Amino acid sequence: MKKQFEKRNISMVMDFYEMTMSNGYFNNHNTDERVAFDVFYRKNPDDGGFAIMAGLEQIIEYIENLHFDDEDIEYLKKQNLFSDEFLNYLREFHFRGDIYAFKEGTIIYPNEPILTVVAPLIDAQLVETAILLELNHQSLIATKANRIVKAAKGRGVSDFGARRAHNVDAAVYGARASYIGGVSSTATILSGQMFNIPVSGTMAHSWVMFYESEYDAFKRYALNYPDNTVLLVDTYDVLNSGVPNAIKVAKEVLAPMNKRLKGIRLDSGDLAYLSKEARKMLDANGLEDCKIIVSNSLDEFTIASLIDQGAKIDSFGVGERLITSRSEPVFGAVYKLVAVEQNGTFVPRIKISENVEKITNPGLKKVYRVFNKNGYAIADLLTLWDEEVDLKKPYRYVDPKKPWKKDCFEDFSIRLLQVPLFVKGECVYHSPALNEIRDYVRQQLDHEIWPEEQRFENPHIHYLDMSEKMYKTKMELLNQSLKK
Amino acid sequence: MKKQFEKRNISMVMDFYEMTMSNGYFNNHNTDERVAFDVFYRKNPDDGGFAIMAGLEQIIEYIENLHFDDEDIEYLKKQNLFSDEFLNYLREFHFRGDIYAFKEGTIIYPNEPILTVVAPLIDAQLVETAILLELNHQSLIATKANRIVKAAKGRGVSDFGARRAHNVDAAVYGARASYIGGVSSTATILSGQMFNIPVSGTMAHSWVMFYESEYDAFKRYALNYPDNTVLLVDTYDVLNSGVPNAIKVAKEVLAPMNKRLKGIRLDSGDLAYLSKEARKMLDANGLEDCKIIVSNSLDEFTIASLIDQGAKIDSFGVGERLITSRSEPVFGAVYKLVAVEQNGTFVPRIKISENVEKITNPGLKKVYRVFNKNGYAIADLLTLWDEEVDLKKPYRYVDPKKPWKKDCFEDFSIRLLQVPLFVKGECVYHSPALNEIRDYVRQQLDHEIWPEEQRFENPHIHYLDMSEKMYKTKMELLNQSLKK
Repeated sequence: MKKQFEKRNISMVMDFYEMTMSNGYFNNHNTDERVAFDVFYRKNPDDGGFAIMAGLEQIIEYIENLHFDDEDIEYLKKQNLFSDEFLNYLREFHFRGDIYAFKEGTIIYPNEPILTVVAPLIDAQLVETAILLELNHQSLIATKANRIVKAAKGRGVSDFGARRAHNVDAAVYGARASYIGGVSSTATILSGQMFNIPVSGTMAHSWVMFYESEYDAFKRYALNYPDNTVLLVDTYDVLNSGVPNAIKVAKEVLAPMNKRLKGIRLDSGDLAYLSKEARKMLDANGLEDCKIIVSNSLDEFTIASLIDQGAKIDSFGVGERLITSRSEPVFGAVYKLVAVEQNGTFVPRIKISENVEKITNPGLKKVYRVFNKNGYAIADLLTLWDEEVDLKKPYRYVDPKKPWKKDCFEDFSIRLLQVPLFVKGECVYHSPALNEIRDYVRQQLDHEIWPEEQRFENPHIHYLDMSEKMYKTKMELLNQSLKK
Repeated sequence: MKKQFEKRNISMVMDFYEMTMSNGYFNNHNTDERVAFDVFYRKNPDDGGFAIMAGLEQIIEYIENLHFDDEDIEYLKKQNLFSDEFLNYLREFHFRGDIYAFKEGTIIYPNEPILTVVAPLIDAQLVETAILLELNHQSLIATKANRIVKAAKGRGVSDFGARRAHNVDAAVYGARASYIGGVSSTATILSGQMFNIPVSGTMAHSWVMFYESEYDAFKRYALNYPDNTVLLVDTYDVLNSGVPNAIKVAKEVLAPMNKRLKGIRLDSGDLAYLSKEARKMLDANGLEDCKIIVSNSLDEFTIASLIDQGAKIDSFGVGERLITSRSEPVFGAVYKLVAVEQNGTFVPRIKISENVEKITNPGLKKVYRVFNKNGYAIADLLTLWDEEVDLKKPYRYVDPKKPWKKDCFEDFSIRLLQVPLFVKGECVYHSPALNEIRDYVRQQLDHEIWPEEQRFENPHIHYLDMSEKMYKTKMELLNQSLKK
């Protein structure tokens, strides 16, 4: 039995149908026919105006390492569904395709291909589950983290979520994604270690309860960490015991060492009221520089409310509602076949659905972000793969929601959003340091993305336009499908 | 940098404050003082009447493997917070304590100690995060899975969730927990392989879209899997194309081979209407044995509604709303200090809080499930560690929500709920096979747990009573705390 603690091969974290289909394709001699799959999602979490692309580094790691061990082949053989020839094929399998994707940290919108796999059929099928799983998880958490950081209006936000995460990876990669989204530190040591994220943490209630008195516990902490004394003041009674004892330690223990009390933390009770009262008490004792840190089931809504109430809070520890994205824990990116190569050209395919919003955008395509002369992103644009956009003249596009309108981009610039990750199975993308990804998010939100798309309530819906050829292709395929 | 794909040491998936506290305890010479921590949770997910204990096997694996590598020590050293003596101590660290817990699969209720660690102070502190993370994740998903299985009223439920899981472990251990909760199979191969869970899966829309026509795609699938032909019928038009093509394949491809069409799957549209119409069409063509499987953002509420509408569905594929427990993705178990050893006896400690429901139950204790003469669980009971319950006479207990009442258990039997997992650092618990854990859940729900606790709407709240001594101890500590 495989154990996950120290050694694992996560190649097999895939849906069983990837294997039943691949075996079928193999037996049907379709193995090397090339196809294109687009990854896109349909709805921003929390009815927001955008999401943040995250998880690429782990997708690359998965694909570079994708292989099947003897025990994997043995396991599949026992299912009595797969041909020996196919299982032998898997034994030698390495990914041979091309992958294009939006750079990690890119602001993303619904229904555009944030990642495209162009690969032999089986290669494209076998990477589906892992690509979706990574993108869905990390994009979800990065997006949620960004909302929480925005609500905190410049105050620090730290990830405290490991204990409520959906197992180890969710804690580790959730911290990574949170940092991309703008959180300033994590409490999860392994994430700090793996991704060079600042780690933070001081004491639990158990420290205070272990010692005979709260004062004794605070004093011992201060003596151990005179430069980093942050005291948890809500074990017994915040205003009658916790804050007074913290002040006493500041005066009796730290001051004689020429040290200052760095902070106090509130983890329960009415944080608005308690923080204001604690602030007054600290200030009255010359501890104006002592920070007040709060935690307790916080998210963007409770943080906004606390600030709105004038709470005196310097930073927030955010746990369960960040690490699970509690208000919307599902990011629904999907992986859809959009083209099949026939005689050297990619022929577009479309997925019809009883649910109109599930109809796909067919074909190999390019995705551009379109900027006005001030550098603000006014729309994203889908074109066919082989179209060029001429920047020198007005560009006629179709808004697929209002195809009767005939509008043009004028005085605009564009950026191609997909960059190559893999070419013929070789990784050609250098994952930036996490700090750079985080900075890229910040830079886009500060300079390229309309504030109207960043508000929480009824944000502006970013336009996803199409070239006239792209729109025509889609309509033709829809009409053809009616005749099947 | 540590990579997670093939090799990992998850010892360091702990909150940073476990280290700052442990270093402090070490420097204060409290390292070997023994303490007791209880794990309990405060609220059943989805306002249900109970939850299911899951994740013990992984907690044991974590604790048995817990160690710090050179690179971990190096990383901690760079934080400039820890003494060299402490870091040397960590280098040799192995868990030395005792752990008691409810058996995996036990039905659990709020505010009772489902796991207790009795260990030297640092040992007890360092295992906090991993214990909570595993219990919180797997108990959450096992509980959710059980709700969904209950709603399905005997129809099969399969886990399809990997792509929406919060990263790899959430998919893998989420499938494990789902199986404990009663799901019949998973689509996630790695989980099937690791835990011997039946795996299932057939085709995606891409299979249908890859081939020139839906009929051709279905035919090729049937030829590959004549004994397991399950066809996805919603790629183009369920009733005008998908189901007719499936019937045609049953007649033209399978029947001549003396094979039957095993099933069709609907993944979009109005599942109630489409399943009824599809059933009629299948039956009219002699395919009464062909199963109808549905998927598409299902959970216990949508499944109950489908069944209520008379939908003709034989089994359900459940994805995102199971694997993330979307309606309540947080299971809030906590880890609280309840006693400190002094001169050979464990002295109880209590955590007061501004939030009354956050006040802890102090001291080392025993937890019993109390059964009436018909074998139904009428209450759980907390007693002090050294109390005995005499079954031969009526037992006077205190309901802490109504302490003025003086009630007795009569004609009752009891079961001690905690069993030893570790004694002096050695694991003494043999994790049962997953099937046995799953059967244990089923057996309790069928024979011991009141149906009134199992309904979704306003379930009966299970009683958590206390011995008179236990209640007195808590009240005395609360009174003392007022005087601090």
